[in-house]
Amino acid sequence: MDPGSHSVAFPRRWWYPVARSTELGRKPLAVTLMDTPLAVFRDAAGVPAVVLDRCGHRNYPLSLGRVTGDGLLQCGYHGWSYDGAGQCLRVPGLRQVRTQSTWHVPAHRCVEQDGFVWAWGEPDAEPTRSPYSLPVVDGRGAGETVFRCDLDSTLRASLENALDVPHTAFLHGGLFRGKTRNTITAVRRPIEGGVEVQYLGEPAGMGPLRLPETSSRTFDHWDRFLLPSIAQIEYAVEGWFRVVNTLVQLPLSPFRTRAWFVVRFSSPLPAPVVQTVVQLQGRRILRQDANALARQTERTRSLGGERYASTELDLLGTAIWRLLNHAERAERTNGSDLPPASVSERRVVFEA
Amino acid sequence: MDPGSHSVAFPRRWWYPVARSTELGRKPLAVTLMDTPLAVFRDAAGVPAVVLDRCGHRNYPLSLGRVTGDGLLQCGYHGWSYDGAGQCLRVPGLRQVRTQSTWHVPAHRCVEQDGFVWAWGEPDAEPTRSPYSLPVVDGRGAGETVFRCDLDSTLRASLENALDVPHTAFLHGGLFRGKTRNTITAVRRPIEGGVEVQYLGEPAGMGPLRLPETSSRTFDHWDRFLLPSIAQIEYAVEGWFRVVNTLVQLPLSPFRTRAWFVVRFSSPLPAPVVQTVVQLQGRRILRQDANALARQTERTRSLGGERYASTELDLLGTAIWRLLNHAERAERTNGSDLPPASVSERRVVFEA
Amino acid sequence: MDPGSHSVAFPRRWWYPVARSTELGRKPLAVTLMDTPLAVFRDAAGVPAVVLDRCGHRNYPLSLGRVTGDGLLQCGYHGWSYDGAGQCLRVPGLRQVRTQSTWHVPAHRCVEQDGFVWAWGEPDAEPTRSPYSLPVVDGRGAGETVFRCDLDSTLRASLENALDVPHTAFLHGGLFRGKTRNTITAVRRPIEGGVEVQYLGEPAGMGPLRLPETSSRTFDHWDRFLLPSIAQIEYAVEGWFRVVNTLVQLPLSPFRTRAWFVVRFSSPLPAPVVQTVVQLQGRRILRQDANALARQTERTRSLGGERYASTELDLLGTAIWRLLNHAERAERTNGSDLPPASVSERRVVFEA
Repeated sequence: MDPGSHSVAFPRRWWYPVARSTELGRKPLAVTLMDTPLAVFRDAAGVPAVVLDRCGHRNYPLSLGRVTGDGLLQCGYHGWSYDGAGQCLRVPGLRQVRTQSTWHVPAHRCVEQDGFVWAWGEPDAEPTRSPYSLPVVDGRGAGETVFRCDLDSTLRASLENALDVPHTAFLHGGLFRGKTRNTITAVRRPIEGGVEVQYLGEPAGMGPLRLPETSSRTFDHWDRFLLPSIAQIEYAVEGWFRVVNTLVQLPLSPFRTRAWFVVRFSSPLPAPVVQTVVQLQGRRILRQDANALARQTERTRSLGGERYASTELDLLGTAIWRLLNHAERAERTNGSDLPPASVSERRVVFEA
Repeated sequence: MDPGSHSVAFPRRWWYPVARSTELGRKPLAVTLMDTPLAVFRDAAGVPAVVLDRCGHRNYPLSLGRVTGDGLLQCGYHGWSYDGAGQCLRVPGLRQVRTQSTWHVPAHRCVEQDGFVWAWGEPDAEPTRSPYSLPVVDGRGAGETVFRCDLDSTLRASLENALDVPHTAFLHGGLFRGKTRNTITAVRRPIEGGVEVQYLGEPAGMGPLRLPETSSRTFDHWDRFLLPSIAQIEYAVEGWFRVVNTLVQLPLSPFRTRAWFVVRFSSPLPAPVVQTVVQLQGRRILRQDANALARQTERTRSLGGERYASTELDLLGTAIWRLLNHAERAERTNGSDLPPASVSERRVVFEA
Repeated sequence: MDPGSHSVAFPRRWWYPVARSTELGRKPLAVTLMDTPLAVFRDAAGVPAVVLDRCGHRNYPLSLGRVTGDGLLQCGYHGWSYDGAGQCLRVPGLRQVRTQSTWHVPAHRCVEQDGFVWAWGEPDAEPTRSPYSLPVVDGRGAGETVFRCDLDSTLRASLENALDVPHTAFLHGGLFRGKTRNTITAVRRPIEGGVEVQYLGEPAGMGPLRLPETSSRTFDHWDRFLLPSIAQIEYAVEGWFRVVNTLVQLPLSPFRTRAWFVVRFSSPLPAPVVQTVVQLQGRRILRQDANALARQTERTRSLGGERYASTELDLLGTAIWRLLNHAERAERTNGSDLPPASVSERRVVFEA
């Protein structure tokens, strides 16, 4: 039995979220980016920095150290101290302080934006683009709520799960679906840095905010994937509400993915009410998804790889993988960054 | 130091027990056969079926799903539904239902017999024989009792342990042996699908049912191995009692073996009394054996393999391995199924 | 990123401590020497013996057995019994007792000295030297105290940590150092079977026994490494006190090291007072070191190897590795046992 392989890709010339701004205070943080341990800290001016979490001396994790008064990251073992560029500037005990290239630790350029610290995936390299900007949702009753979850899953499986409509009827059965059958049209089209699916004719009783099943109103609904690790679900009913759920993801390792759910919304309800509902409903759905992803990962790992069969309903799942895979390959071959032709416009009708 | 290798064999063209009939109700069961995950379920007519425990779509374990009203095994992630032959008959949301070969999951033929669901070791293949039939023990005070245990052990080590007489004096010291020394003759001979050892002159004070040590009565005692995974111990005293303990085993993985102990007996005592004694004594002995097997396995694994030395007392252990190994090789080379000549008749005298 | 490699060496033609004499009573002990499982026991005369912890028969751990009245190590599974040379002298049940070479288990020569059982690293071989003799500390208030710790660390990292002065200011900050800056000269020189560093001008306020910081007295202080696994720290003030802390170490596996700290001392204080202080302070420091070593090991393992940068302050760390590595290579190539020229006399001045 051919086990297949795992759809794991890691395009490096992109931005990845390594921490929420609010998580990062005076103490350095430890995180991994595809198994590479990183230490995240703020220098004396509060500017975040990301270096390989390994002292150049005896390889002690720098994240276990502290930030000195002058904003250096000081190792907790022998006190070697580094600036945000990974340069070792102090070696306690040494009378003549020099700087040697072998004392350098690799550093990742980083940017603080939209409440996240973003690190460039390639160490000691200059970024060639900006991080994705989260959409602004304003107007009446606008608000934001964020939750975080670590998933036992590849980045690809987590992205596909987040953007997959058909599973909601089964995995989240009681939560989402009504009993009436509907026909929905989905249109997939490439967008800047990713791909989007727009759903047409979706009755406004499917999502977390329900209407009576007899209502004939429809949602505006888009699902989007943005390279390298962002999934976005947008629901709106013109003049009534708009909710954009952006999953900002960090591939901790090939089979473990950290996801922040940034839910921005406007609605007739007071923001704190919506926040509470989203947190409760969101965490409930998330528990089901996290469990399913863990089981799926367990299975594909125990069998040595994935063997997926796809239908026309898997509109985004296949596109996500093509884009991720293409982005990784493009870096290796210095090929074009542009999405592959295989992620072309496509229209599918399905029952829901 | 040459570590040796592990005596792990997996002949596939044989029947393996995958569940007790009574374990398998409306919910599908998960089990592994030499690390291959299987989902066991009953169709609408109650007939058991065994399929690879991996949905063809996104590889979610089918055993986490449910059996539909019309007897299909429905995946819990997106609802793909399979019949007992592994054919996918429904894909929710898809308007045009087709059947594609890539949607098929491998299925194992199965049979329900003697209170067990037996699966053929090779998927998508026709069985070439019937499962072993457990012997009937009837007459006065006849009864049956069953217990189950998962052992950290290769199938071979578990089989050898079950059928090994010499270890009882040491591992189960206080339980089995009297203090008088006896000379016992053991005769090994090939039988249909396996090998048997008959013990001659064994005083009827050795086994779980003791006589006063001064008694001169002897047991009839046979130990049998039946390919691929059955061990059987039969004790009888003509006109007094007969007990047949059949270990029906499932190799969950190379180093983990599930054993059901099916003890059938007739005796002057009421059956419930014997059942109670057998359960208590049996579980006590089993705990000692399970622990010894786990330690043995730990040791051979930590050293990278087995390095066994055998004496003439290891009459069955060596024969078990030759038969298992021969059966596996015969399949690979399409050779003869018959037991190898090396398992010939042999007579050994030992002290006990 | 080149991960580097781990500095793991295992010279076999040396003595390793496998147990404290007081640990080894009537019951056999289990221990590993670089992942090789060993059973340690005392024969009828109380003489310790060390054999591979695997019965020659079915590979059950011999350490789970017992020592017979006549001083043989008897397997707990089938009762095979071995003498201290690993020879199998008894097989229960077998009428004709022979001795076959395949029944032999490898044995390590051993010696009991200085309160330890020492085993020769190479099985079935004659030692070519004696174990290291621990120094005698006598005179007024002389005493000894011992503690043991298992470290998640290579032998090399544990040795380096024990003998490394610069880390004490950081890892043990509050415990060791005063606030005044001093200039210390360290002289490294080869010694019989190892290397030593002597510190000159070290103010007597650095160590576990403090003087007022204004005191101008200086310590005599030597740090020593003795092949293959001994670290020794000696502090003395002429006419006042002397303390020799000898770390006797057993590499359980490449990344796990057992260390016994044998602290011998003489001082004006009553020995029980010093014992109490040393135990309390020692264990406190040890917890910090054990934790740091575990983190360092975790990091180098997660990154696939060490990438150390060294300065002139790492006087002993680099020498330890050269000596260990050299000793291992010398065995493979039958080369000279003598320390390499690279561990030559060297003088370094540093701030403390």
